[in-house]
Amino acid sequence: MSNWPDLAGRIEGDTHVLPVRVYFEDTDFSGRVYHARYLQFMERGRSDYLRLLGIHHRELAAEGRAFAVRHMAIDFLRPASIDDVVVVRTVTVGIQGARIVLRQEVSRGGEPLVAATVTVALVGPSGRPERLPPAIRAAFKTGD
Amino acid sequence: MSNWPDLAGRIEGDTHVLPVRVYFEDTDFSGRVYHARYLQFMERGRSDYLRLLGIHHRELAAEGRAFAVRHMAIDFLRPASIDDVVVVRTVTVGIQGARIVLRQEVSRGGEPLVAATVTVALVGPSGRPERLPPAIRAAFKTGD
Amino acid sequence: MSNWPDLAGRIEGDTHVLPVRVYFEDTDFSGRVYHARYLQFMERGRSDYLRLLGIHHRELAAEGRAFAVRHMAIDFLRPASIDDVVVVRTVTVGIQGARIVLRQEVSRGGEPLVAATVTVALVGPSGRPERLPPAIRAAFKTGD
Amino acid sequence: MSNWPDLAGRIEGDTHVLPVRVYFEDTDFSGRVYHARYLQFMERGRSDYLRLLGIHHRELAAEGRAFAVRHMAIDFLRPASIDDVVVVRTVTVGIQGARIVLRQEVSRGGEPLVAATVTVALVGPSGRPERLPPAIRAAFKTGD
Repeated sequence: MSNWPDLAGRIEGDTHVLPVRVYFEDTDFSGRVYHARYLQFMERGRSDYLRLLGIHHRELAAEGRAFAVRHMAIDFLRPASIDDVVVVRTVTVGIQGARIVLRQEVSRGGEPLVAATVTVALVGPSGRPERLPPAIRAAFKTGD
Repeated sequence: MSNWPDLAGRIEGDTHVLPVRVYFEDTDFSGRVYHARYLQFMERGRSDYLRLLGIHHRELAAEGRAFAVRHMAIDFLRPASIDDVVVVRTVTVGIQGARIVLRQEVSRGGEPLVAATVTVALVGPSGRPERLPPAIRAAFKTGD
Repeated sequence: MSNWPDLAGRIEGDTHVLPVRVYFEDTDFSGRVYHARYLQFMERGRSDYLRLLGIHHRELAAEGRAFAVRHMAIDFLRPASIDDVVVVRTVTVGIQGARIVLRQEVSRGGEPLVAATVTVALVGPSGRPERLPPAIRAAFKTGD
Repeated sequence: MSNWPDLAGRIEGDTHVLPVRVYFEDTDFSGRVYHARYLQFMERGRSDYLRLLGIHHRELAAEGRAFAVRHMAIDFLRPASIDDVVVVRTVTVGIQGARIVLRQEVSRGGEPLVAATVTVALVGPSGRPERLPPAIRAAFKTGD
């Protein structure tokens, strides 16, 4: 959408950067952001990173394909609160076969809040992982 | 699942009754249940009501059909809090063409918290509403 | 955040306008946006509208106050899908005592998807509605 | 609630067991359960496990305390789908200082879907971790 620049964040060097506002829906009664919400923030980061690389969920879905998360290791370091703007940073650390390993960080004012290593796989119509097609591999190389 | 009776609630007279526990995920930083969460509680009630009437989302989906919410009028009367057990009551108030009108209430200890009138429609593969098939109409009659 | 302009949308005339991306988390197995998600999109619109008027949830919370939704009437007209950018428009239609009545619309490419009338109230430390303080009333007038 | 037995699951030996129904809200457009949802299922398991041990979020909150997740390592092995009943199993593997380490598994019909190691800490009014009070330590011993 031309009149909302940066809605999908930006790629700065080899890192995708996406700002995310904390709304009511993201918090819980402890007054902080609910832990599982950071996974949604990170998924938004991954989706917009793919989008800027030219890879769209809808096109993948038309072929019966989707990216699925296979493994996450997550450190919850500091909490975010209502009205905060946090930044999700995503960088590819490896591609092998059907799998992409990403490093993601959620921070606020440069202070890390959540850090994660995420392994995603491309899953085909059979429900089984599929070797990443050349176009997707090439897109990630362009992102390098 | 035979060893977890009542997991889908019960039909008592013409009313489906489902208990719902309030967890962290349902609350927001105000300390109360986030308003949109009650819609999820009510959707669980509708799904389990249909389930007990013998109508399953997965079977509908296999035919390219799904129930979609068309209209809701909702009064948020009193808040629920963490650890509460609330009860969702669902009753059919009318069936016409593609539409079912339901009355739903979320209460705690007999005290109403949220009251809603919900219109759902059966949507077919074309994305357009479809007249309810006789089996579904009959299921609702059995529920009377 | 100075380098992410428009993160809280814009006020155009008397209407607050906020673009919202549809992510995985917003969809359900029907392939469309889950109905209760539109309420979250609309809550983001209301929060950012208040933000641009100078009213912040965190400051209200420090005084034991929060806005709570009292009534919603919602028409779900057309579905949104993954990767869509929808726009949430919010306009105040009335202020009386503790209550603000807003009209909200979610649209895509100018086509309305969801239309709602929403009544919110300012709730004080006692849990009871409080007459809107002059500063908040004045902020809404500025928005006129 | 006396007339809804097992709403908080059961402790069988040293393992807490909670059945969870998959609803519309839990799925995404891929047709499967959205990955972050399993964290909510696991949090429900932990909350009900604590509940059956006699530890209540609301009482902790009255003292300015809350359990917070510090680390998770999660394997997403197989997907769940709409209408499924999955079972969340939770077992304590260690308690040290402010921290409890739990092993959690989400399965369907005995087949593991998601397996996680979760470290939670008790956080006090200052926002810093607090050594677990004797009553909480004792409750976990009872659970042994």
